[in-house]
Amino acid sequence: MVRFEIISQGEELVSGTTSDTNATFMCAAFKERGFTPGRITVVGDELAGIRDALAEAVRRVPVVVCTGGLGPTSDDLTTEAAGLAFGLAIAEHPVALAQVKARYASRNRPMPPANQKQAILPAGATLLENHWGTAPGYRLDVSGTVVYFLPGVPSEMRRMFDTYVLPDLALRYTLPPRRTIVFRCVGLPESEAAQRMDGVERPGVTVGYRASLPEIHVKLHLDDGVDAAPVVAETRARLGEFVFTVDGGSLAEVVGKRLAARGETVATAESCTAGRIAADLTTIAGASAWFIGGAVVYANSEKMRQCGVSTVMLAEDGAVSEAVARALAEGIRTRSGASWGIAATGIAGPDGGTKEKPVGTVHIAVAGGSGTWHRRLQLPFDRARNLQMTTALALDLLRRQLD
Amino acid sequence: MVRFEIISQGEELVSGTTSDTNATFMCAAFKERGFTPGRITVVGDELAGIRDALAEAVRRVPVVVCTGGLGPTSDDLTTEAAGLAFGLAIAEHPVALAQVKARYASRNRPMPPANQKQAILPAGATLLENHWGTAPGYRLDVSGTVVYFLPGVPSEMRRMFDTYVLPDLALRYTLPPRRTIVFRCVGLPESEAAQRMDGVERPGVTVGYRASLPEIHVKLHLDDGVDAAPVVAETRARLGEFVFTVDGGSLAEVVGKRLAARGETVATAESCTAGRIAADLTTIAGASAWFIGGAVVYANSEKMRQCGVSTVMLAEDGAVSEAVARALAEGIRTRSGASWGIAATGIAGPDGGTKEKPVGTVHIAVAGGSGTWHRRLQLPFDRARNLQMTTALALDLLRRQLD
Repeated sequence: MVRFEIISQGEELVSGTTSDTNATFMCAAFKERGFTPGRITVVGDELAGIRDALAEAVRRVPVVVCTGGLGPTSDDLTTEAAGLAFGLAIAEHPVALAQVKARYASRNRPMPPANQKQAILPAGATLLENHWGTAPGYRLDVSGTVVYFLPGVPSEMRRMFDTYVLPDLALRYTLPPRRTIVFRCVGLPESEAAQRMDGVERPGVTVGYRASLPEIHVKLHLDDGVDAAPVVAETRARLGEFVFTVDGGSLAEVVGKRLAARGETVATAESCTAGRIAADLTTIAGASAWFIGGAVVYANSEKMRQCGVSTVMLAEDGAVSEAVARALAEGIRTRSGASWGIAATGIAGPDGGTKEKPVGTVHIAVAGGSGTWHRRLQLPFDRARNLQMTTALALDLLRRQLD
Repeated sequence: MVRFEIISQGEELVSGTTSDTNATFMCAAFKERGFTPGRITVVGDELAGIRDALAEAVRRVPVVVCTGGLGPTSDDLTTEAAGLAFGLAIAEHPVALAQVKARYASRNRPMPPANQKQAILPAGATLLENHWGTAPGYRLDVSGTVVYFLPGVPSEMRRMFDTYVLPDLALRYTLPPRRTIVFRCVGLPESEAAQRMDGVERPGVTVGYRASLPEIHVKLHLDDGVDAAPVVAETRARLGEFVFTVDGGSLAEVVGKRLAARGETVATAESCTAGRIAADLTTIAGASAWFIGGAVVYANSEKMRQCGVSTVMLAEDGAVSEAVARALAEGIRTRSGASWGIAATGIAGPDGGTKEKPVGTVHIAVAGGSGTWHRRLQLPFDRARNLQMTTALALDLLRRQLD
């Protein structure tokens, strides 16, 4: 059990401007590699605060990563704090200075004088060159603890963590490899997922859950030497049709890949979701290969004009009904010439509900060459989440036809 | 200067599953009220870790909020840790137990036996009833420091923080009142906002910035006694047309309110944004009063079919062009009968760029009764953020016509 701690430095983190996503990224990477989490300490732009956090962390654990405070301005204090915490002199590092200068030169700009500060490192530091920004990182070995200092800009931090920290840790520690297999599900409540998975855990196999509306991820963690195939097969059987991918991408990506493989296309007709299904499908680059477009039919006049829904149907069944959902899916399919039509109509809330059709009543439909499928939903969330869940379940209704 | 610290407890926070947004929420609230941030300590489900974090925090600062670990399961350890940290016995609190039971009764469910644990509090704790969930919170006064214990579920934590923590702190501390006025801007880079605001700071007036793509918020913090009117007027003049609201809601809300006030409607025709403008407008409950619907015209065939764009125009100008953007906005306006048509067509990336039209080239247009307005954008972001920025700038183009 090798424990690590993280120190996240930045006034924006303690003043309510930004959440500490750097720590989340690193914790996930550490966990995957078998390290045990200690604490995360978040400190603002205060020399004493950073100094104390560093000095305390190295007393507790053998691995520390400190991000932030390596920039050129007067409130970037991490290096000075490290010098104080560990009793090390700080001085200009000629290679670091050359790298900062080269980085500016490569963009045809002179180095601003303030950036000279970024080349000042504690004595004994091993330089970690930053190819993605100007602030060099470094590594210190302090009385049995390795401390990595990385810039706080998330894109730079992530690349430096992957490039330097993980390979260096792999040289220092050989932890039992663990494999994680992620079953991404939609439409399955976390409690039901847990019930279905009851009894899968055994020596070498642990099960984790992550609810992230509209999805739930069921994770199998397998110790080295455990045969994955039977556990995966059992999990697949227990979770059944709710699984839309194992270790794969988003629902939109899964749907897009299957459509592309079949040489088919899809078009959307959205009332309550008002473009969210189309927007979700087009998060995938290259969606134009299988996504044609569609209609946002918020007003009844648009349901009639764009999808041919009849006045009679709207009057008799109402806009939020199985009949209208089916008519929308079939209408957009026919008019656009797509292989598949996908539609949603419902009452997202907070207002607009009735006794027969309370807030959260939604009808989704998918029309294809061989028929039309429909599902009625009764969603319990707020407006935003009702629409998010409708979008996912509508895509999932199509995904099931493509299975 | 009154310092506070936050302790965030939860295995999900140190295992890379969830970022600590609770701390961000509380830090912002503390800052607004003039408190000074100390550190945030994040700990997992470990008794000793929680105990140490609590014991250390009360030695450093007079105000501590600890969230999480008050649930019914065996890994909810905060109360036990508080007992150990402060040398207090823990015991069942009859009022707390009655409240947990009542909460279940109100939903016609018996209290599961495990939840009895939630009524166990440290001796001397002041109960904070949780009206929004089952885990009661509490307050402890420990050798000159007040420690608030709140559940970790963000929606419950926020309500309990607002209901109990802030009023209690107001009784304990009279900090100089400060007023914050937020200017929400779109299309203005942070560096330019800072340049425009240079010189506005003066005794009693500080300026803050928060970049939150696609918006930037410029915040005026005014000490008590400062006359707001001239500073507000000056800020307005400096930021100019980029300000879409002062202390108001989202761009969609601002657009919706103005449309409603004018008795007008809008419809969308979206190529690259593929429903994102419509989805953004319909985040506002009651949007049906001024939003009709629209077209998602991803394929060229749909641009022709749904908005009457001509084959000649698509061949000569290309789908990503001023002419097509204008034709889409005018086409959807005419066909839907809306007062306004709003359109976007562009190359979001990562592929699809050419030398003449590189990735990030976008044309947006707004058509109204008295003309059509157009803007060409050259966006530098990745696919998701290019589309997010296009959506905001298209809405803002309409907002400017409604000013």
